[in-house]
Amino acid sequence: MADAAGREFFTTRTVSEALAGFRPGRRTGTETVPLRGALRRVPSEPVTAPHPLPGFARSTVDGYAVRAADTYGVSEGLPGYLTVTGAVRMGAEPETAVTQGTAVAMPTGGAIPPGADAVVMVEYTAEVMPGTIEVVRPVAPADGVVRADEDARPGDEIIPGGRPLRPQDLGMLAAAGVTSVTVHKKPVVTIFSTGDEVVAPDTAELKPGQVRDATASALAALVADAGGEPVFAGIIPDDPGALEEALRDALPASDLLLISAGSSVGIRDETASAVRRLGEPSIWCHGLAIKPGKPTLLAECGGVPVIGLPGNPRSALVVFRLIGMPVVRLVGGWTVPPPEPSVRARLSRDLASATGRLDVVQVTVRDGVATPVFGHSALLSVLTAADGYIVIPEEATGLDASSVVDVTLYA
Amino acid sequence: MADAAGREFFTTRTVSEALAGFRPGRRTGTETVPLRGALRRVPSEPVTAPHPLPGFARSTVDGYAVRAADTYGVSEGLPGYLTVTGAVRMGAEPETAVTQGTAVAMPTGGAIPPGADAVVMVEYTAEVMPGTIEVVRPVAPADGVVRADEDARPGDEIIPGGRPLRPQDLGMLAAAGVTSVTVHKKPVVTIFSTGDEVVAPDTAELKPGQVRDATASALAALVADAGGEPVFAGIIPDDPGALEEALRDALPASDLLLISAGSSVGIRDETASAVRRLGEPSIWCHGLAIKPGKPTLLAECGGVPVIGLPGNPRSALVVFRLIGMPVVRLVGGWTVPPPEPSVRARLSRDLASATGRLDVVQVTVRDGVATPVFGHSALLSVLTAADGYIVIPEEATGLDASSVVDVTLYA
Repeated sequence: MADAAGREFFTTRTVSEALAGFRPGRRTGTETVPLRGALRRVPSEPVTAPHPLPGFARSTVDGYAVRAADTYGVSEGLPGYLTVTGAVRMGAEPETAVTQGTAVAMPTGGAIPPGADAVVMVEYTAEVMPGTIEVVRPVAPADGVVRADEDARPGDEIIPGGRPLRPQDLGMLAAAGVTSVTVHKKPVVTIFSTGDEVVAPDTAELKPGQVRDATASALAALVADAGGEPVFAGIIPDDPGALEEALRDALPASDLLLISAGSSVGIRDETASAVRRLGEPSIWCHGLAIKPGKPTLLAECGGVPVIGLPGNPRSALVVFRLIGMPVVRLVGGWTVPPPEPSVRARLSRDLASATGRLDVVQVTVRDGVATPVFGHSALLSVLTAADGYIVIPEEATGLDASSVVDVTLYA
Repeated sequence: MADAAGREFFTTRTVSEALAGFRPGRRTGTETVPLRGALRRVPSEPVTAPHPLPGFARSTVDGYAVRAADTYGVSEGLPGYLTVTGAVRMGAEPETAVTQGTAVAMPTGGAIPPGADAVVMVEYTAEVMPGTIEVVRPVAPADGVVRADEDARPGDEIIPGGRPLRPQDLGMLAAAGVTSVTVHKKPVVTIFSTGDEVVAPDTAELKPGQVRDATASALAALVADAGGEPVFAGIIPDDPGALEEALRDALPASDLLLISAGSSVGIRDETASAVRRLGEPSIWCHGLAIKPGKPTLLAECGGVPVIGLPGNPRSALVVFRLIGMPVVRLVGGWTVPPPEPSVRARLSRDLASATGRLDVVQVTVRDGVATPVFGHSALLSVLTAADGYIVIPEEATGLDASSVVDVTLYA
């Protein structure tokens, strides 16, 4: 929006509004990956069991497969006697069925022979003469046995769609013989650095006024943590035409455009202008009620989400963590937010905040005490010194010393 | 140890004893990796700043570089007047020094010109005629300025050794021009599956009594999560000679041997026997006071830690998460434990436990209520259904329904 004089109105939103309202519809397509490369990938559909698991009734103990009824009433004082007619070998089909008055020796994990409905633990038996055991404790049907379909029945959902695969999920898939999984492609996140002062990290000697591009490397790592595929588009000079052209070039191959913007007001506006000139732009907000991180732009261009971040590295990383990573996950098909490490701690001092604005305060945590790390939002050392951060919510005017706070920890 | 009849005594330990006492001295060597591949890698030494950062005094606002003394006493009612003698361009050395009565226009992030000691925000100035501004608020020295060494002084530790690199750490290294990092090599963890019943996950049709190897895939993922490099040694038949030979072959190239053992008592003992016949064996414990997971073997052979896990997949994964992952991290040079996601919840029902034994109970968490997922330790579905787990400590005899518990969440 612009007024008669052509000045921009900023559409400022709160973080809660952004999290609830900026929900681009874009989703990546799917691909099939081998199980060994599938950790943390996001299945696009639930995976079901192709057959019962474990697939056969198994013993859970070392002992003897029996008919439970043959053990009813036995005790230490009045043992029962059974004839041992065979032994089950691991990994092999049982060769001997159990009939009334007989038992078959069983290793843990072996297949229960036909006719048996329980396994007596070896501890409650004794071989009284070759081929005969006494049993001193009764068993009920199903004791010592895992059913053939107790881990999964055919068609059971063994892995949900939309939840990144965890180590145990890979185990379950392996058990079911599912050696490849259809997952969402990783969202391609193209990262643009802007600013005439910004030079590549491998620049050995800086000229006065130059800084190396710190933000892109850190953003790429956060993109990877959110399941995305970061692509560096390089450093774009402070020139509206150059940024617009770079964005346009990257648009077809990107699932998200991420602009680490210039930090001065004029340059910030150029980001918005460049976005506005792309195809089918829709600017969702330009200005976020967050400290640090106010000059944030959220938009969509031709179905591709666009996030314009503040120029200060710390502000950019704070905003991307809070607002950007959820969008990367959404586009990549995650339907559940990941659990984040956190710890409760007592705040070391008062913290002031303005109502209506969300404050993100970096802290160290020692012995249950959260101590704020202060410093200008241009300083990265504030983030590298921090163990995590606390959030002062929009409705609060601050936090008192000794308040108990939830610190989200950096992993 | 064995008694006169040659029977084994199990050396059983508690989990706390194992965590405190089983601390192998092995550490991986180092290698140099590029910054872009360094996320979560573990620097072997602290990294220090090669030069001051940001390297020059920078403006934190859009405005005018001034001598603070020139603004003393100014106000809305009594503005001060300064002659604008130039403008700083982003990324360029200032061309004009500031002298008494003059000001230089500054973008955020620009280099402070010689002679200036503060920056007045543009909001508190107005251009009253071309080349002259009025200033309506005074500034103190250092206002609006980040010092040349405010992010780091030369030689300051910018990244500690032993802590895996986080996204912001990569940003700091990029800012400092450090484009490669010396890190610990990933510990090579060789994973052995044993058991005549175990077949490869890509076995399409199982014969009765066979199960696919679920544990190795899940263990490999946990190894990777702990910063290790999993290597699959395949499935070893239940034959002491075969396991011993396989372990011996892998020993020279491994930083840790991980044996997913057979589940029957005889086979478990074979793992210990095979380990005992390797070079310089030292068995630290054979039996852990944990449920599930009792038949766990912790040992060292010729300086290589050896972990023998229970045969049941769930037991194996529980023990490896609690006991094995810390060892992988230790060998890989981590000096700080990673933060783990957790949540407080109210227990849905009573849980019994034996004193002296640590119980690990899988739970789902919904609306603040932790509901145990029960099932035999042979069942993987218990782990895939769980959102996390709770620990009933060794000294407890159980937990009451409605107790508040800390659930460690699976990520």
